[in-house]
Amino acid sequence: MIGETHRFTLRALKTQHSLHLPPFSSLSSPMADPSPKPVPLLKDQLDIVIPTIRNLDFLEMWRPFFEQYHLIIVQDGDPNKVISVPQGFDYELYNRNDINRILGPKANCISFKDSACRCFGYMVSKKKYIYTIDDDCFVAKDPSGKDINALEQHIKNLLSPATPFFFNTLYDPYREGADFVRGYPFSLREGAPTAVSHGLWLNIPDYDAPTQLVKPRERNTRYVDAVLTIPKGTLFPMCGMNLAFDRELIGPAMYFGLMGDGQPIGRYDDMWAGWCVKVICDHLGLGVKTGLPYIWHSKASNPFVNLKKEYKGIFWQEEIIPFFQSATLSKECTSVQKCYIELSKQVKEKLGAVDPYFNKLADAMVTWIEAWDELNNTSEETSSKQPNGAAK
Amino acid sequence: MIGETHRFTLRALKTQHSLHLPPFSSLSSPMADPSPKPVPLLKDQLDIVIPTIRNLDFLEMWRPFFEQYHLIIVQDGDPNKVISVPQGFDYELYNRNDINRILGPKANCISFKDSACRCFGYMVSKKKYIYTIDDDCFVAKDPSGKDINALEQHIKNLLSPATPFFFNTLYDPYREGADFVRGYPFSLREGAPTAVSHGLWLNIPDYDAPTQLVKPRERNTRYVDAVLTIPKGTLFPMCGMNLAFDRELIGPAMYFGLMGDGQPIGRYDDMWAGWCVKVICDHLGLGVKTGLPYIWHSKASNPFVNLKKEYKGIFWQEEIIPFFQSATLSKECTSVQKCYIELSKQVKEKLGAVDPYFNKLADAMVTWIEAWDELNNTSEETSSKQPNGAAK
Repeated sequence: MIGETHRFTLRALKTQHSLHLPPFSSLSSPMADPSPKPVPLLKDQLDIVIPTIRNLDFLEMWRPFFEQYHLIIVQDGDPNKVISVPQGFDYELYNRNDINRILGPKANCISFKDSACRCFGYMVSKKKYIYTIDDDCFVAKDPSGKDINALEQHIKNLLSPATPFFFNTLYDPYREGADFVRGYPFSLREGAPTAVSHGLWLNIPDYDAPTQLVKPRERNTRYVDAVLTIPKGTLFPMCGMNLAFDRELIGPAMYFGLMGDGQPIGRYDDMWAGWCVKVICDHLGLGVKTGLPYIWHSKASNPFVNLKKEYKGIFWQEEIIPFFQSATLSKECTSVQKCYIELSKQVKEKLGAVDPYFNKLADAMVTWIEAWDELNNTSEETSSKQPNGAAK
Repeated sequence: MIGETHRFTLRALKTQHSLHLPPFSSLSSPMADPSPKPVPLLKDQLDIVIPTIRNLDFLEMWRPFFEQYHLIIVQDGDPNKVISVPQGFDYELYNRNDINRILGPKANCISFKDSACRCFGYMVSKKKYIYTIDDDCFVAKDPSGKDINALEQHIKNLLSPATPFFFNTLYDPYREGADFVRGYPFSLREGAPTAVSHGLWLNIPDYDAPTQLVKPRERNTRYVDAVLTIPKGTLFPMCGMNLAFDRELIGPAMYFGLMGDGQPIGRYDDMWAGWCVKVICDHLGLGVKTGLPYIWHSKASNPFVNLKKEYKGIFWQEEIIPFFQSATLSKECTSVQKCYIELSKQVKEKLGAVDPYFNKLADAMVTWIEAWDELNNTSEETSSKQPNGAAK
């Protein structure tokens, strides 16, 4: 199957930027709308970001759920390879040449030969919401055998409040058939805005290399019918395989770091983003949810290759996590960007001693924010500064 | 059905205290043991505590799961009423006269006409573990239609470690078929000892009076197949309906406060205990789990009566919860008792201004610890001081 590949220049990108989006996508209302296809939730307010090195045949299975959304495909590896996308999908595709052309020298903050490159898609999107999914993830079934519309569940998670300040024992209190239990303070029942929805995986669980090696046959078969807010002050391992977030609330913190080609580490891209995001959400009073929806994760990656990528991370995380657990941001950090810059300074100051890599990462965090602001600034002059030169 | 009621004097109590328990109850092993009934988990190390004002016919449904355990029944209300217990159960029963006789003046720390009286059962037990259940709770079924052995699940929860320091997105990592996910620090994978297992309820959810009034028909029909650790630093609303804990680890903090007769508040007994317990568990590095097992909660209590009981609590919890959220215990607090006494001082100091009730409650917290230590001290002299006089 040969797909149409669209390569966007800066000009094309700017055109898209200037689109006026409707204030809010409405629920499908079949009575009012005689068209056969109901408008999916947030259709014009959400982009699906997919990092890939191969043909996107996996989209066929997602067609009923993704076809009406816009896709941003970030092609990793050889930019000369043509990635085939099934017919009928609306997409834009960026390869390394595009990234270099759009970001110029700042392209060095975007990882190469690692799925961390996906965060470039977050940066160029102009939508309020992002859903990102790996190309080895398929549609899972719920216990009744019905196909799970993962995107719809993420949207529900993002559009309903979170409860980071007190734990509700019946899980998501905003869900149909549930509520806050006795003893839950009434002043907290309005909840907090939800910035992140972290979905899970049936079949192949997201294990590290040592666990993969020790439990090669373990499969996740348990469907836990819950969405819950990760409490304020608690860190979690955020996996980028099946993840949605509100770009306006937390986008600039969704940087997946320096991984893969030329870096001493891989497979910690989403973890890094998760730690930064959680500290910043806690500071800004935003919620992070985890649980439903499940996707079907089809293929375990090679544990030997993974061990090589993770090796240093296994040591480093023992120092990184206490660092993030004790990180506090000053009152002046009133925007995600300010929080992130402040955090980058602390990374340099406190993790620089662990390994020089963290100095480089801290610099890349600053570059990322500069690039984000350039691409997302409404003023013409900032964006017109974009050079066409190649990345360093 | 006429049950045998056993009333224990202090002498009987002391005899029970001196029992030598086996170091650890073993799993049932049908091959080694030819007897038809397998020995249930922790048979000689766990007491089931039931507060009640009525005949305990509900035990018939629990017979297969409870019959081999020892029950401690705390009879609330009129001590002259005879409570009938189905034949074949091994139990001790305490009414108000017994409580007054055993505790003397200290009996004033045990609530009357409120299920908070159940904590007397925790105090007189000599076992390592407690399971407490309300008499309107029945055996629930899992999604496959199988009866849920709630006690067995609680024991599993208590015997496996907890993970209070970092969130595992696949929930309990010690469960069969699950593990720690990628990004979970290896240094934290030993976990922490589990002090509390908080179970949930199908059918009638544990709602406060306002929610009961607003949603009279809401039923919990959702079976969430998960056990999770409530992270360190996060408070939760602990319900006493279906609750297990390790007496040795946290028993002295399981005080259900002053509720009911003569008090300005009710239905906050378990909440109060939960807040104290969580702060102390966090301080001592112990884990608190919530989730499975479910029981079937049969009957909603009267929302109008409940509103009257909860009325002040609804206001007070808005000040109590921030108090507990910011409470810290000094390094000298190395035992549960020391933590609890320290907490009682802070209650007096910081909540006394909210209402004089909290001064009374703080005093009762101290009395509770004194009574606990008297009944649980191995030295003869302490216990022999127990008077036979009535409570104040």
